[in-house]
Amino acid sequence: MKVLRIFMIGDIVGRPGRTIIREKLLFLRKKYEVNFIIANGENAAGGNGITEKIAQELFISGVDFITTGNHVWDNKDIFNFIDTENRIIRPANYPNSPGKGYQIVQIGAGTKIGILNISGRTFMPPLDCPFKTADLIIQEMKNMTKVIVVDFHAEATSEKIAMGWYLDGRVSLVAGTHTHVQTADERILTNGTAYITDIGMTGPCNSVLGIEKERIINKFISQMPVRFEVAKGPAEINGIIVDIDESTGRALKIQRIREST
Amino acid sequence: MKVLRIFMIGDIVGRPGRTIIREKLLFLRKKYEVNFIIANGENAAGGNGITEKIAQELFISGVDFITTGNHVWDNKDIFNFIDTENRIIRPANYPNSPGKGYQIVQIGAGTKIGILNISGRTFMPPLDCPFKTADLIIQEMKNMTKVIVVDFHAEATSEKIAMGWYLDGRVSLVAGTHTHVQTADERILTNGTAYITDIGMTGPCNSVLGIEKERIINKFISQMPVRFEVAKGPAEINGIIVDIDESTGRALKIQRIREST
Amino acid sequence: MKVLRIFMIGDIVGRPGRTIIREKLLFLRKKYEVNFIIANGENAAGGNGITEKIAQELFISGVDFITTGNHVWDNKDIFNFIDTENRIIRPANYPNSPGKGYQIVQIGAGTKIGILNISGRTFMPPLDCPFKTADLIIQEMKNMTKVIVVDFHAEATSEKIAMGWYLDGRVSLVAGTHTHVQTADERILTNGTAYITDIGMTGPCNSVLGIEKERIINKFISQMPVRFEVAKGPAEINGIIVDIDESTGRALKIQRIREST
Amino acid sequence: MKVLRIFMIGDIVGRPGRTIIREKLLFLRKKYEVNFIIANGENAAGGNGITEKIAQELFISGVDFITTGNHVWDNKDIFNFIDTENRIIRPANYPNSPGKGYQIVQIGAGTKIGILNISGRTFMPPLDCPFKTADLIIQEMKNMTKVIVVDFHAEATSEKIAMGWYLDGRVSLVAGTHTHVQTADERILTNGTAYITDIGMTGPCNSVLGIEKERIINKFISQMPVRFEVAKGPAEINGIIVDIDESTGRALKIQRIREST
Ligand SMILES: [Fe+2]
Ligand SMILES: [Fe+2]
Ligand SMILES: [Fe+2]
Ligand SMILES: [Fe+2]
Ligand SMILES: [Fe+2]
Ligand SMILES: [Fe+2]
Ligand SMILES: [Fe+2]
Ligand SMILES: [Fe+2]
Repeated sequence: MKVLRIFMIGDIVGRPGRTIIREKLLFLRKKYEVNFIIANGENAAGGNGITEKIAQELFISGVDFITTGNHVWDNKDIFNFIDTENRIIRPANYPNSPGKGYQIVQIGAGTKIGILNISGRTFMPPLDCPFKTADLIIQEMKNMTKVIVVDFHAEATSEKIAMGWYLDGRVSLVAGTHTHVQTADERILTNGTAYITDIGMTGPCNSVLGIEKERIINKFISQMPVRFEVAKGPAEINGIIVDIDESTGRALKIQRIREST
Repeated sequence: MKVLRIFMIGDIVGRPGRTIIREKLLFLRKKYEVNFIIANGENAAGGNGITEKIAQELFISGVDFITTGNHVWDNKDIFNFIDTENRIIRPANYPNSPGKGYQIVQIGAGTKIGILNISGRTFMPPLDCPFKTADLIIQEMKNMTKVIVVDFHAEATSEKIAMGWYLDGRVSLVAGTHTHVQTADERILTNGTAYITDIGMTGPCNSVLGIEKERIINKFISQMPVRFEVAKGPAEINGIIVDIDESTGRALKIQRIREST
Repeated sequence: MKVLRIFMIGDIVGRPGRTIIREKLLFLRKKYEVNFIIANGENAAGGNGITEKIAQELFISGVDFITTGNHVWDNKDIFNFIDTENRIIRPANYPNSPGKGYQIVQIGAGTKIGILNISGRTFMPPLDCPFKTADLIIQEMKNMTKVIVVDFHAEATSEKIAMGWYLDGRVSLVAGTHTHVQTADERILTNGTAYITDIGMTGPCNSVLGIEKERIINKFISQMPVRFEVAKGPAEINGIIVDIDESTGRALKIQRIREST
Repeated sequence: MKVLRIFMIGDIVGRPGRTIIREKLLFLRKKYEVNFIIANGENAAGGNGITEKIAQELFISGVDFITTGNHVWDNKDIFNFIDTENRIIRPANYPNSPGKGYQIVQIGAGTKIGILNISGRTFMPPLDCPFKTADLIIQEMKNMTKVIVVDFHAEATSEKIAMGWYLDGRVSLVAGTHTHVQTADERILTNGTAYITDIGMTGPCNSVLGIEKERIINKFISQMPVRFEVAKGPAEINGIIVDIDESTGRALKIQRIREST
């Protein structure tokens, strides 16, 4: 049995998130003997979106592939490179947008990983149905590989868990992103799919989701617009490591990772 | 230094949740040498609300105090006993409702615990400001005890974390409920308040938030009304144990608890 | 030029709505020399949904065709007849539901009317895209008739007006329902489609959208659940009359109608 | 009996809205023999917010007083003058903001008009309770004048109508703004308060709420961010004229106004 070990990293927030990635990722790759690293980059550029330059910075730091989410369009630079850069995807259920929602990546000789990014709709914009979108794309990917990992970028725990059960046995991993808080419910579901509601974020710890806490508190109290700024101070990487049996696509193990500065 | 150990249990869902509480709680109280047990009971009656009979059942099972949330009014029996039963509270920021939003409980000789229940407003009904409500009530409680624990029943991680920082140093614990998924971000904040975004739920594991998964999946796909039913099968208790220095009200330790059937 | 005159009636609310329809509709049909009467029936059964018996009552009262909206599934009786009764439709963009979302009705010799019901998504459930759904169905209907009327059941004025412009020149009428308040913006758009943001409701005037006003006020202030009851007292019919050139499908005239008890 | 005639004008959108105001307002004031003109200015600066210069432009054009809404903070210039300019208010139920939510204006010898601006909460941010806020402020204003007009800036028809009934007999007028579509439900309620759900907007007619229609349609279909631009072409003024008995504060008459370029 050949085991593939994938490291999936939660939403990288701004410079502090990128810095800890640059400083720690190669060490973590070695320490955990990881075969492939996927990171969610929707907040990599100052908290909002991602630029080509920043994507390159993440690749150089050791990230192999970038997924995104609802913030993907925040920085307009995305439109300059999302159609040409093969290592970045956006939620597949945008009905009508540039870029791709999934990708098959070849690593080493013969091993292929399918990566799918979808967005939820509860408390979020009404994109195409994430469940039906997943059905169609997974069916297509199945022709090419048994190893499929899904970044389900969604707000509501109910929608995320529902997706986990819905895809159980059809994909190797359903990992939630977007809430920026790592959940403690990682497990292998009944039919072999690894699942976690949210893998958390990568950025400053003493913050609200990576943003300066005083500003967010002020916004909640005043209900007035506030200019968000990425917080300073110590950062952490949140993610998961999943072991997948390449021949079956079944997950063997899922463990949560947290690494601080 | 006298240390108070509080066990706080996440939303108990229906009969499976009540059953595991009845079977395991006295054992857990002993095992962890807990001084006081608080449980969120908003889903105790078939997933929706709570009745007087069920509240009594929980007390007999070892629960000392019940908090609730947005589902508190779902079962109309609540109106028969919420004004007379001192061991149950509802979110304090309901502007105009029966019952109380906080309580001071005396345990043993001299030790007093203040318990506050608040609801968030992001993706939830526009109750009174949870931050201002907390300010007012905590100020009042401070006259009576230094040990104050807060059940912040809210959906958005941003609002919950903001509340944690907002109350840091003023209360012993801010513990989130409502999303039914335990988070892995438990910690002691800078000024001594224990914090966790969500303590999870107590009920059937192979479900969506305690409800039969097929029904929820079907609802997400069809967008049609579905009658929810509490799921069957193995259950688990999710919660936290917090150690508090009685003389200062500061938290010393917070640990996540998960106990399965 | 043969002109077709269609009377479209806003959401009929409960018994008071049905009563004024029974008492006034035949008179109005005669007075305005109407060829076809469409009524939105989503609130006909006590404010929530519609039953087979009530649908029959409306047909006997002179309604030729019933459209619905988000409340269509509230009364479970709908599942007993929506698949067999040809004169009732539900929003076409429900992804997966019983019933039909559009219909072609033959009136007299040769005249055919296409009726399409769609639901908006802003502040409403994430059904399939109303714009794309409309595209597909209208293309199909165009093969059978040039006269197409659309009941766009939606909350947000922006989405409704956007749909009006989107379909301008492709259908005879885009009439909004759901807000229960008639708007004063009826007009013929640039390319010949008659448009109004909302045609209003048919039911008790001294109410909040047909419901007893004290209950609604109480709900807004307390944020607690309130059992809605249809209001009593004088009622009114709100609707529009549209004249359509049968040979081209273009609207010639749109006028608002209000008729009180 | 001395009758006061007030002209209230709906959300002025961008340059087209300001231009038609400058060109038509003095004529309308004369034609209708209006005593006082109130305009909602939340979209006066390019669709988003208002600046001091634009406020002055509106005053010079004949506007006596400016109300606002949720967009009031969009243009940061507001913070430079809202605390010093007495003729502009923002929703009174912002919990913690600069500026005032109501004002008493003296016109001529002895006549005083109280103007109150409130925001709804349904499908909008959770400000303080609009009903309780209105209670408190109206009680205070009642000591100074019987003539009170309310601009209730809200999305949901239910909340607006509920507010109308809630304040019926206590104020002279409850006029809705924010949806930018004039409603046809103007009336005098049972206890003498004039009411309309929305007075509409003042700006380009061939648009979606004043904005270029293609962009809005594109946004609904793609669910991607779109830069809004105020539309071009013919504009219209939407508003109402209300006659109030100064000695009692009761409304005598309410009529809708629409004036096109
Ligand atoms: Fe994110
Ligand atoms: Fe996100
Ligand atoms: Fe719950
Ligand atoms: Fe809840
Ligand atoms: Fe309706
Ligand atoms: Fe509706
Ligand atoms: Fe506006
Ligand atoms: Fe507005």
